[in-house]
Amino acid sequence: MTASQGNNKPRILIVGGVAGGASAAARCRRLCEGASITIVERGPYISFANCGLPYYVGNVIKSKEDLLVASVGLFRNRLNVDVRLRQEVTKIDRQNKTVDVRDLEKNTSYQEKYDYLLLSPGAEPIRPKLEGIDLDGVYSVRDIPDASHIKEWIAKNNAKSAVVVGGGFIGLEMAENLSLLNLKVHVVEALPQLMPAMDPEMLPPLYRKMEEHGVDIIFHDGLKSIVKDNSTGNNLRVITASGKSVPADIVVLGIGVRPDTQLAKACGLKIGSLGGIVVDEHMKTSDDSIYAVGDAVEVEDFLFPGERTLLALAGPANRQARIAVESMLGRTNHTFRGVQGTFVCGAFGMVVAATGASEKKLQKRGWKQGREYEAAVIHAGSHAGYYPNSKTVHLKLLFDLKTGKILGAQAVGEDGVDKRIDCIAMALQAGMTVLDLEEAELCYAPQFGSAKDPVNLAGMVAANILRGDVQQTHWLEHEEWLNVTETNKVKDEECILIDVRNPEEVQSEPVPNAQNIPLRDIRSQLDKLPKEKEIAVFCRSGQRSYLASRMLSQLGFHVKNISGGFLSYRDVKASAEIR
Amino acid sequence: MTASQGNNKPRILIVGGVAGGASAAARCRRLCEGASITIVERGPYISFANCGLPYYVGNVIKSKEDLLVASVGLFRNRLNVDVRLRQEVTKIDRQNKTVDVRDLEKNTSYQEKYDYLLLSPGAEPIRPKLEGIDLDGVYSVRDIPDASHIKEWIAKNNAKSAVVVGGGFIGLEMAENLSLLNLKVHVVEALPQLMPAMDPEMLPPLYRKMEEHGVDIIFHDGLKSIVKDNSTGNNLRVITASGKSVPADIVVLGIGVRPDTQLAKACGLKIGSLGGIVVDEHMKTSDDSIYAVGDAVEVEDFLFPGERTLLALAGPANRQARIAVESMLGRTNHTFRGVQGTFVCGAFGMVVAATGASEKKLQKRGWKQGREYEAAVIHAGSHAGYYPNSKTVHLKLLFDLKTGKILGAQAVGEDGVDKRIDCIAMALQAGMTVLDLEEAELCYAPQFGSAKDPVNLAGMVAANILRGDVQQTHWLEHEEWLNVTETNKVKDEECILIDVRNPEEVQSEPVPNAQNIPLRDIRSQLDKLPKEKEIAVFCRSGQRSYLASRMLSQLGFHVKNISGGFLSYRDVKASAEIR
Repeated sequence: MTASQGNNKPRILIVGGVAGGASAAARCRRLCEGASITIVERGPYISFANCGLPYYVGNVIKSKEDLLVASVGLFRNRLNVDVRLRQEVTKIDRQNKTVDVRDLEKNTSYQEKYDYLLLSPGAEPIRPKLEGIDLDGVYSVRDIPDASHIKEWIAKNNAKSAVVVGGGFIGLEMAENLSLLNLKVHVVEALPQLMPAMDPEMLPPLYRKMEEHGVDIIFHDGLKSIVKDNSTGNNLRVITASGKSVPADIVVLGIGVRPDTQLAKACGLKIGSLGGIVVDEHMKTSDDSIYAVGDAVEVEDFLFPGERTLLALAGPANRQARIAVESMLGRTNHTFRGVQGTFVCGAFGMVVAATGASEKKLQKRGWKQGREYEAAVIHAGSHAGYYPNSKTVHLKLLFDLKTGKILGAQAVGEDGVDKRIDCIAMALQAGMTVLDLEEAELCYAPQFGSAKDPVNLAGMVAANILRGDVQQTHWLEHEEWLNVTETNKVKDEECILIDVRNPEEVQSEPVPNAQNIPLRDIRSQLDKLPKEKEIAVFCRSGQRSYLASRMLSQLGFHVKNISGGFLSYRDVKASAEIR
Repeated sequence: MTASQGNNKPRILIVGGVAGGASAAARCRRLCEGASITIVERGPYISFANCGLPYYVGNVIKSKEDLLVASVGLFRNRLNVDVRLRQEVTKIDRQNKTVDVRDLEKNTSYQEKYDYLLLSPGAEPIRPKLEGIDLDGVYSVRDIPDASHIKEWIAKNNAKSAVVVGGGFIGLEMAENLSLLNLKVHVVEALPQLMPAMDPEMLPPLYRKMEEHGVDIIFHDGLKSIVKDNSTGNNLRVITASGKSVPADIVVLGIGVRPDTQLAKACGLKIGSLGGIVVDEHMKTSDDSIYAVGDAVEVEDFLFPGERTLLALAGPANRQARIAVESMLGRTNHTFRGVQGTFVCGAFGMVVAATGASEKKLQKRGWKQGREYEAAVIHAGSHAGYYPNSKTVHLKLLFDLKTGKILGAQAVGEDGVDKRIDCIAMALQAGMTVLDLEEAELCYAPQFGSAKDPVNLAGMVAANILRGDVQQTHWLEHEEWLNVTETNKVKDEECILIDVRNPEEVQSEPVPNAQNIPLRDIRSQLDKLPKEKEIAVFCRSGQRSYLASRMLSQLGFHVKNISGGFLSYRDVKASAEIR
């Protein structure tokens, strides 16, 4: 029996008072004035902006108070919610529907009854059991006290250098903010790329910006240990798996997070293969009276129904909380639709964002490029080129080759990145195809976009492939082209590489092994091209070579357009060299 | 018989070489290497950025060359297109499929054959036949020569003041750019609002910015005449319908545009009731060999199939051009889906954007608020409030009360406006509902958005209305509340007005006739509220009053939440006072 049917004064107990928990309490009060709502939060704050912690460290956000999205007073007075800070639920008795609560200040314990329990414990930073991981000066970034301790340590030790371990969201944002404090920053990353949710070749524009800002990145090299170092001015020294030794006045761990499932496990709730709490589409756990939301749960992948994933982001946590509470209160028609994995991360003036599946993910599922899916890659202006300060948006759109359906998109650039990913996120949610992107009607004035917005352009490139108007190939399909130098030319007898840029472009940014025939001269130099071989054409971004490939294919040549042109060449090569 | 079936060397003649015409030529060449493609353009340039003209006047875009999106050389060399500048098609002979072309430089004429003709003549600025309209110093802004003449006139006459007649896109952009040149600008607008595609109450934030920048707006007053004025330092004097007399060194007309249909009419093509060329979904006119695109045609309204509209924007023109050419070349599966009317306009640091229908438009069609449609109005941060420099996005979402389908959205603000409208434009294209917006998964990091993005929030507010969780009312339904002053209090015996903001907010931004009960005190002051009367509640933006109205309605009060709260009060009142 649901609360609204049988009980208009349900006792709802919420474990954890950050994004999911706080949202749940507010939604619960709005739906049910009679409910008794209690939040038990182990830390000293509720509803704080953990996404803002790196910026508080970097003094971009000046005061701790700014991080408190809603105060305890607000929850108590406006929402009539009983907020218990510095108290921890230590045990759940599912049989009797009670929890044991420990008051961490007074060091006392008591029991509390519930009709419904909402678990919103979040995720905990991964701290591998390595030598030196618990030394002073080694920090994770989970809550306000963590951030405060980092600031204090930097001030006290007059820190001049930092090692950030891990190059995901937190790692990248911490690297930026430590740089803002004038620390020399090293990022140590076990993978051959940062931002693991992105495809690797998207990221070199970010790496270049980080280099400009003096950040050193050590790729493909894990953390082995951290040792004390009193010989230099530095407090610590980070030793990598490969044996590198990097001095640092502070070490920040951004290795990742894992669902905090201690309580759920202890009371026998079902845990999934990914390590998160298992919930249904109402966010209900294996116990009808217990719901769970946020970073601690496994959620369905919107793109691949039935498949589960972990996603530690505040937006989905908030929406899950609303759905969980509605279900508790008898509103069962609202279900969680799964996650697309939309994210954005800004650092060093560069913005990285994505929605849906990456190419890595598709390939891991066994999808084949050119058979099941294709990628449309463009490098387009954030707004009209004739208006000042247009920045390049590097955009990759993945789509289903059979249906044209959008599978995912990734973008990198200094401006206009989040807008394009948000548009495509809406389209992906709607189940739209690349043909719909081609026909999207988006805002255009010269400061904001182009008559053909990057979203339209990506749709057009994809539609050309889908309709068979252009045959596409990728730099990675011809790794020999990436590795050549002037003295190490490969000769592919099957396929010739034609660069249709203007000679001055070729001179300043050459691609070895390519033959230059500027687009404007192709019609008069057809005799230079063999009809029996495959011809791969490229230009700077792919537009002129598209025109060339249309022309040549109509004239009977076997021609393929190289996706993304020279700009992709540069980044695919840079990313391949990391491995 | 289509070109691809019967003729792989069709002669395609394009009249007008700006957005639609230039796009058509490029698309045509890519699809058909054998086609003979000719562009006849009456002006001295093709493919120029007419959306950039105001910014060229204001020196934001420094050089004329920047406005040339693609050069004549590029069209000739890369695309093998025969470009004829300063030539004008003066007559179409449909029977013989020929056109008469006049060379405006040599003053000679000749005939040209076509298999397909594409008309992309654009629209012409409206120049009402009023006294003084042809005086020196009175300009329209259609092409590069116009913009050059304006710049020259300002320089030669050391112009210090301007009157811009009309406050649509061009008027607003010209007002901004003339201000940038330190001219004192007056805008004269016949309607009681600027930007006629927007609902009037959305615009006061723009008006305030314009005032800050020293621009005077004369509303609801048409242009009567322009006279010479040698008595002052000014060249001209603008006389309005109401008799106002405004001195100006230059007058810019931004009254609007009308389809340029001279050629089409003369050869008997069907013209619609709105004055545009009638085309089918392939952009084909009433003649099978003649297509038309862009500002000159009537297009279908995407939201109301079967209804036609005029839309003078470059994005749709480009897409129409592609479709027209494809149809000529036998690709008939691609049709134009109609227009949503998505637009953006930036001026004086304020951004105004919209997609779909406005409330005015719905009402003109006979739709009733509260019966057929409702509006969800929010005032939300462009990004997380705890991160610096968040700006308010004023967002109005219109939706169908029966189906929840999105009908349109409008937004105004200094930042993040185009992104939200683009998202909703995608959703509208997909036929999504407000429930889909509630569940949208968009980019969130504190610099870019919020865990609940404004798009989510608008969806949530709308979903609350749709589900009946909240009863909504609007300031305009209670005009007496807008007009009251301290000495002129109205007493509505049926409905009392409760302001749930904190006393300090009420003091600094009072709303006469409202009784203040801060949200935190409502639970303890229920005895102050009558159960037999209707209670209308508001706060600053609508969130706290939503909570209050949920609470009170569950406690048995007849309560309505006032849409948009105090911020809407301020703007609805300001906009109502203009009339």
